[in-house]
Amino acid sequence: MAKLSLLSLSFSLLFLFGGCLAQLGSQQQYLWQDLQQQQQHRLRAKTDCRIERLTAQEPSRTYRSEAGFTEFWDRNNEQFECAGVAAVRNVIQTQGLFLPHYNSAPQLLYVVQGRGLLGIVIPGCAETFESETQQGSEGQRRFLDRHQKVRQFRQGDVLALPAGVTLWFYNNGDEQIVTVSLLDTANEMNQLDLKFRNFFLAGNQQSGRQSQGQQEGESQGKGESENSNIFNGFEDEVLADAFNVETETIRKLKGQWDRRGRIVRAEKFNVVFPREEEEEQQRQQGQQGRGGPNGLEETLCTMRFRENLAHPTRADIFNPRAGRLATLNGQTLPILNVLQLSAVRGVLYKNAIMAPHWNVNAHSAIYITRGSSRIQVVGHSGKLVFDGEVKEGQLIIIPQNFVVVKKAGEQGCEWIAFKTNDNAMISPLAGRLSAFRSMPIEVVMNAYQISREEAQNLKYSREESIVFSSSSSSSRSAKPKSLEYAWDVIKSVM
Amino acid sequence: MAKLSLLSLSFSLLFLFGGCLAQLGSQQQYLWQDLQQQQQHRLRAKTDCRIERLTAQEPSRTYRSEAGFTEFWDRNNEQFECAGVAAVRNVIQTQGLFLPHYNSAPQLLYVVQGRGLLGIVIPGCAETFESETQQGSEGQRRFLDRHQKVRQFRQGDVLALPAGVTLWFYNNGDEQIVTVSLLDTANEMNQLDLKFRNFFLAGNQQSGRQSQGQQEGESQGKGESENSNIFNGFEDEVLADAFNVETETIRKLKGQWDRRGRIVRAEKFNVVFPREEEEEQQRQQGQQGRGGPNGLEETLCTMRFRENLAHPTRADIFNPRAGRLATLNGQTLPILNVLQLSAVRGVLYKNAIMAPHWNVNAHSAIYITRGSSRIQVVGHSGKLVFDGEVKEGQLIIIPQNFVVVKKAGEQGCEWIAFKTNDNAMISPLAGRLSAFRSMPIEVVMNAYQISREEAQNLKYSREESIVFSSSSSSSRSAKPKSLEYAWDVIKSVM
Amino acid sequence: MAKLSLLSLSFSLLFLFGGCLAQLGSQQQYLWQDLQQQQQHRLRAKTDCRIERLTAQEPSRTYRSEAGFTEFWDRNNEQFECAGVAAVRNVIQTQGLFLPHYNSAPQLLYVVQGRGLLGIVIPGCAETFESETQQGSEGQRRFLDRHQKVRQFRQGDVLALPAGVTLWFYNNGDEQIVTVSLLDTANEMNQLDLKFRNFFLAGNQQSGRQSQGQQEGESQGKGESENSNIFNGFEDEVLADAFNVETETIRKLKGQWDRRGRIVRAEKFNVVFPREEEEEQQRQQGQQGRGGPNGLEETLCTMRFRENLAHPTRADIFNPRAGRLATLNGQTLPILNVLQLSAVRGVLYKNAIMAPHWNVNAHSAIYITRGSSRIQVVGHSGKLVFDGEVKEGQLIIIPQNFVVVKKAGEQGCEWIAFKTNDNAMISPLAGRLSAFRSMPIEVVMNAYQISREEAQNLKYSREESIVFSSSSSSSRSAKPKSLEYAWDVIKSVM
Repeated sequence: MAKLSLLSLSFSLLFLFGGCLAQLGSQQQYLWQDLQQQQQHRLRAKTDCRIERLTAQEPSRTYRSEAGFTEFWDRNNEQFECAGVAAVRNVIQTQGLFLPHYNSAPQLLYVVQGRGLLGIVIPGCAETFESETQQGSEGQRRFLDRHQKVRQFRQGDVLALPAGVTLWFYNNGDEQIVTVSLLDTANEMNQLDLKFRNFFLAGNQQSGRQSQGQQEGESQGKGESENSNIFNGFEDEVLADAFNVETETIRKLKGQWDRRGRIVRAEKFNVVFPREEEEEQQRQQGQQGRGGPNGLEETLCTMRFRENLAHPTRADIFNPRAGRLATLNGQTLPILNVLQLSAVRGVLYKNAIMAPHWNVNAHSAIYITRGSSRIQVVGHSGKLVFDGEVKEGQLIIIPQNFVVVKKAGEQGCEWIAFKTNDNAMISPLAGRLSAFRSMPIEVVMNAYQISREEAQNLKYSREESIVFSSSSSSSRSAKPKSLEYAWDVIKSVM
Repeated sequence: MAKLSLLSLSFSLLFLFGGCLAQLGSQQQYLWQDLQQQQQHRLRAKTDCRIERLTAQEPSRTYRSEAGFTEFWDRNNEQFECAGVAAVRNVIQTQGLFLPHYNSAPQLLYVVQGRGLLGIVIPGCAETFESETQQGSEGQRRFLDRHQKVRQFRQGDVLALPAGVTLWFYNNGDEQIVTVSLLDTANEMNQLDLKFRNFFLAGNQQSGRQSQGQQEGESQGKGESENSNIFNGFEDEVLADAFNVETETIRKLKGQWDRRGRIVRAEKFNVVFPREEEEEQQRQQGQQGRGGPNGLEETLCTMRFRENLAHPTRADIFNPRAGRLATLNGQTLPILNVLQLSAVRGVLYKNAIMAPHWNVNAHSAIYITRGSSRIQVVGHSGKLVFDGEVKEGQLIIIPQNFVVVKKAGEQGCEWIAFKTNDNAMISPLAGRLSAFRSMPIEVVMNAYQISREEAQNLKYSREESIVFSSSSSSSRSAKPKSLEYAWDVIKSVM
Repeated sequence: MAKLSLLSLSFSLLFLFGGCLAQLGSQQQYLWQDLQQQQQHRLRAKTDCRIERLTAQEPSRTYRSEAGFTEFWDRNNEQFECAGVAAVRNVIQTQGLFLPHYNSAPQLLYVVQGRGLLGIVIPGCAETFESETQQGSEGQRRFLDRHQKVRQFRQGDVLALPAGVTLWFYNNGDEQIVTVSLLDTANEMNQLDLKFRNFFLAGNQQSGRQSQGQQEGESQGKGESENSNIFNGFEDEVLADAFNVETETIRKLKGQWDRRGRIVRAEKFNVVFPREEEEEQQRQQGQQGRGGPNGLEETLCTMRFRENLAHPTRADIFNPRAGRLATLNGQTLPILNVLQLSAVRGVLYKNAIMAPHWNVNAHSAIYITRGSSRIQVVGHSGKLVFDGEVKEGQLIIIPQNFVVVKKAGEQGCEWIAFKTNDNAMISPLAGRLSAFRSMPIEVVMNAYQISREEAQNLKYSREESIVFSSSSSSSRSAKPKSLEYAWDVIKSVM
C-alpha cells in the first residue's frame, strides 16, 4: 500500500512540474521501480569465450573532430567478443561540444582528466533549468530558454549512462577532458545485436576523418563509413512538417556539409547552471532524501548518474603500506542496478600487489590511468593467458572466473575496472579474505599434501585483506611470522 | 511480514476453492510474485540486426480450416529475425472454435473485429465456473460440468497470453472474429530456440490444407508439414491407461481422420458465462480490489489478461486536431510485467503526424487496422531503411533505436503497435516532449550552426506533444508563431 | 524503511563476526536481496532445439582419481545443447576428499547414496567454525584453526550450489558417496560461453587418467587435456610474494607431480563440526527464524543450500496406490531463486503412472535413482521423440513444452528431476488437475467430435491428481465409474 501511495504522489508531483504526459510520465517510472527493487539480475547474450591469449591494448582507430578526437578499441578480438563489450576513449578540447547522440548499449564512463557539463535527455522529465534572456529587459520576458537539468562532472567521476537516451558533453574547463568508456553491448538493455551503434542527432561524420589503424571500427561493417546523423535519411518536407519549421532549417539539421566531426568548437555557450557549492549542497540534500518518506528523489528525472571515486577518503579498502580500492555498485549508485554494471577504482603504491583473485559473477575491463602493473592472468585448466606489463592508456579484459594477479611497477599504478554486473563479487586467493582462510586446515593439508605448518603459513602468512605490500624483500625471506602473532592480528579486527 | 501473511491467506483460500494441490498451488504463485514486484527486466535472445531495408508485409501463408483460417507472416526475414518475433492473423467464423493449444512463446493479441470467448487453462487454478445439467432434474444432479473461468473479449481488446498454457477461442458473436498476434519467440519465457512452435491438443493439421504462398511456415522446417496434435505420438494403450478410458476414445483424441483444421465449427456450444453487465461489474470490483488488503485479486487464477484500447475515452494522449494514443503496459495490465510486452493503440486523423521518435528500450511491430500511413524509418548512420505507404492489414517492424515518422493518409490511420518491453519508452524528436526541447538552446545553436532564432523555432514551433496536426498547408508556409505566443502555451500547461 | 534498517543491522552484525570488509560485506548482500525479492525470472542463452530424437544415456566418459571417480555425460548431443546444461556423476570413497574447485555454472546436486561434509567458501563471510589445537595446552592457544561453516549432507539431499564459489566435499561416512549433478551452463550466472568449465584450486588432472569412452569431455576442446589447477600458470615468485610464503610451498600448491586426480584420500581429517542432533536443532531454529524480525538468517553466509527430499513425509503429492512427489523450488529453498533452478523427487510404485504432462516454463533432466520406467516423449507436431525403458543410472532430458508420460516398471521407479526454472510448472493432461478438467465439456465434445458421455469420461474418469495407479488391469476394462461417484470424490476434496 505504501508503495502505491508513493507512486501516486510521485505522479502528481511530476505532473505539477509539467511536461509529463501520462505515457511519458509512466515511462520514467520504468527505471524508478527497478531501483526500488534494486534488482541484481544479470542478463547477457551468450558469447564465445575460447580465450587462448589476452592482450593489453591501446585504441586501434582514431576519429578526429574539430575540437577533439575519439579512439576506438578494436572489437574484432576474442576478449572483447567474450565479454560482449566495446571500449572508447574521448578527448574533448576546451570549449568542445560532444554532439548530442544516443547509444544502443549502456555505458560506464570514467573521467580521466578535466571537467565539464553533461546533458542527459530523459523523455518525459520536466525542463527544470531556466536561463535568462539576453535581449529582453521586461519582467514577462525574463526566462527565454528552458531545458532539462545540466549536470557537472570532473576528474575521477564515473558516469553511468543508460542506453537510448540523448547525451551531450561540453568542456567548460581550462584543460582537455579525457574520458574512457565501457559500452556493454551484451546488456539486456540492448535488444539489437552485439554491434555497438551510436546514433547522432547532429553532425555528419565522414569516413575521411578517420585516421590511424584499421578500417573496421565501431560498426565493423562495410558501407557504414558514411556515418550521417539520424535526420539525414528523412525527406526534408516530412521533417519540416513534423517540426513546423522551414525546410531551410531542416537542411541545417542534416548538416550535410558539416565537416566538424563529432566534437565541435562552441565558443558561445552561455549555459547557466548551479555553482559547485550549490551543486554539492543539492547533492547532499539528495542523499539525505534517499530512503526518505516520499521516494521522489529516486525518480529517474532527479536521480544521480555519477559518483566521484578519485578522492582518497572515498576508499572502501585501504592499506597504508599498499594502496586502496573504491568500489561503486548498485548499492552506492542505484542507477547501476538498471545498467547492471559496476566499477572499482584502484590505487597500488610502488611494488604493491593486488591479491590474486577471480571475478565470481562478472567480466572485468581494466584501464590503467597512471603508472603500470605487471599482470598475470590464468584461465581454465591453469593455462597462462596473459603475462606482461600493462601501462597507462592500455586496457585489458579479464573474463569471468579467470584468475588475475597484479603487481604495481616502480611508479605505482592507478586504474579503473568496469564490471559487467551491478554487484560484482571477487574471490581472493590470498590474504585475510581468501579461500584458504575459509577452509579447514585439514582440507589445505590434504589437498596439497603439505604439513600443518605449511598449511598454516598458506592460511595466515598474509594478514592484509586484498591490497598487499610486497613481501619479497622483507618478511618472506625470513620465516613467516609466528601464528601467535597472526592470531593477535585476527583478534584485533574482531 | 505483510507479504508472507498475504501469501498464506492466498494459499488457504485457494485451497478452499479446491483443486489446488501443494505443487500446483505454489506454481501459480510463480507469476503472482512477479506481479507483486512489477519487474521490468527484459531478457532477450540476441539476434542479428544488420537491417538494410525494412518491408511492410501482409501474411505470406494461409492455413485454411473448417470455420476460419490462419495467416502467417514470413519469418525468413531480417526484420523478424532482428526483433525475435513472429506474427499471425486469425479469422474465426461465427460458431467457430479455435482448438485448444499452447505456444512456446508469449503472445499479445489484438482483436481487430468481432467478439467471442477465451479459455485460458492455468494449471492449479480452481474450476470456478459451473453449468447446469441438461438431463437431470433432481437436486443432487444440478451441476453437471465444472471448468475454469471463461473470459469474454471484443473488438479493441488486447489479450496478453502467457507461453505454455492451454488456450481456446470461440466465436459466439454474429460476425467474423479477426485477430492479429505478436509471438515473442526471443522472450525469456521461451527456453527453446527462436522458432515459433504451437502444440495442439486436438485436430490434425495436414499440410494439404495449406494454400497461398511459400512452403516454409510457422515452423520453417522440412518434414514438419504433418502437424499432428500432441496425442498422436503416444501409444493408444499408454494414453488409455493414463486417462482411464477406452482406447476407442483415445483414437478420437488423436483425430487422425479429422480434416477440419485448427478452427472447427461448433454449433452446439452451450457454455454458460456471466452476462456482459455482470462481467463489467465483476471487473470493476476486481479493479477496486487491486491494491486491497489481501492481494487475492492478483493471483494468476483471477487476474486480468485483457484490456480494451478502442474506446476514445481510453486515450492517454489526445490532440483534437490530430488523433490519440492509448498505451497498455505493465503498470496498467500487470500480466504484461510477466510477459515483458506492451502495446499502443494509435489513431491519426487525415494527414496528421506522429512525432518522429525512436523506441528507447524495445522493438515495435506496427499493424495497420484501418486506413494508411506514409512511414519513413531511418537506421544507424542516418540510412533510410523504409519509405512507403503502409496500408490496412500490413505489418512493419521498427527495430529498437531506429527513428520513425508516420503521416496518416487521406483516410486517416489506425494501428496497434506491439512492443518487446513491458514498459516501452519512446523518445520524440519534435514537439513539446522532444529531445530539442530538453536541451539548452546553446547546444542546439552550436550543434547545427544556426542562429538563436532558428534554434528557438526548432525547440518551440511545434507545441503539440506527440500527435501533431499537419502544418504543411497552414502555419509552416507562414512564419512560425512568435515565441511570446509559444511561451503562453507552455505556461498554460504548467 | 524497514528494509533499510534490516540491512544496516545485518551489516553491523556481520562486522562483529569479523572478516567482512565493506566491499565483501556488500557483495554477499547481492544474493541476499535477490532472495528478499524472490525473483523468478529465467534468463537463458538461446540454444538450438530441433530435437528429432531424445536418448536416455549413461555417462560416456570416466575420470578416475585416487579415492573415487567422476563420470561425464556426453554434451555433444542435441538434447543437452537444447537444454543448455551438463550432467556429471561423482563417486567419492570413504575418506575421499573432492578437491576445492569452482564451476562456471550453478549446480543442483542430488545425493544418491552416502553422507559427507560440504564446504562452500563465500567471499566475505566470517570464519565461524573453530577447532581446538592438538599441540597447546594453555588457555591462549585454545583455538588453532578457524574456517567458514562446514555443512553436512546425506542421501536424499539436494544441494544448490552457486557458480564461482569454491566447493569441497569429504566422505566421512562408511559407504561410498554417489552424487549426480546438473550444471546449468545457459544460466545467467555464467557470463562465459555454453561450455562447462571447472577451475580446481588443487591437484593436477592428467588426461592419462581418463578412461572409457570418448576423448571430448567436459570441456570438449582439444589441447585442454592437461587440466592443471589454477596456480599452475602463475610464476612461482609472483605467488610466493602474494602469499608471503616460500616458493617451495608454491610448488606444492601447483601440484605438478600430483597423480591423485580430483578426489584424494584424506585419512587424517579431524574437522570438527556440530553433531547431527545439534545440526538438526540449528536447522529448526533457522527455519523458525526465517521471516523473523531481523532477516539475518537470510544472508548468504548463513543460508540453507540443501534440503532432503527422500523422506516419505516430505511428499507434496501422495497417492497411496501409486507413489509420491516431493518438490523443491524457490519457495521452499530460497537460494534456488538465485540459481533459477528447481527439483522434483519422484517415487512411482510398480506399474504406476505419472500423468502425461508438459513443462510449462522449464527444461527437465530426469535421472533414475532406482528401478525403471517406460517413458514416451512427444514433441512439436505430435512427433514421438522417445519411447523406451529408462533404467537406474540413466538420464534423459525433456525439453520445455514437450509432452511426457512415464509408467514405472515391475520394480517401481524412483528419480530426481532437475528443472531449469526456480518455480517450474507442469501442465497435466489427465487427472484431476488436467487441461481437460479445466475446459467446458462443450469444448472437449466439439474438439474431438465425441459424445457428451465420452467427454465426461475424458474429464472425470481419472480422479487422481498427478500420480496414477495403473488402471489397465482393473477399472478401465470395466466401464468408467459413474459420474455421481466421481462427483462425490470431487466434493470430498473441497
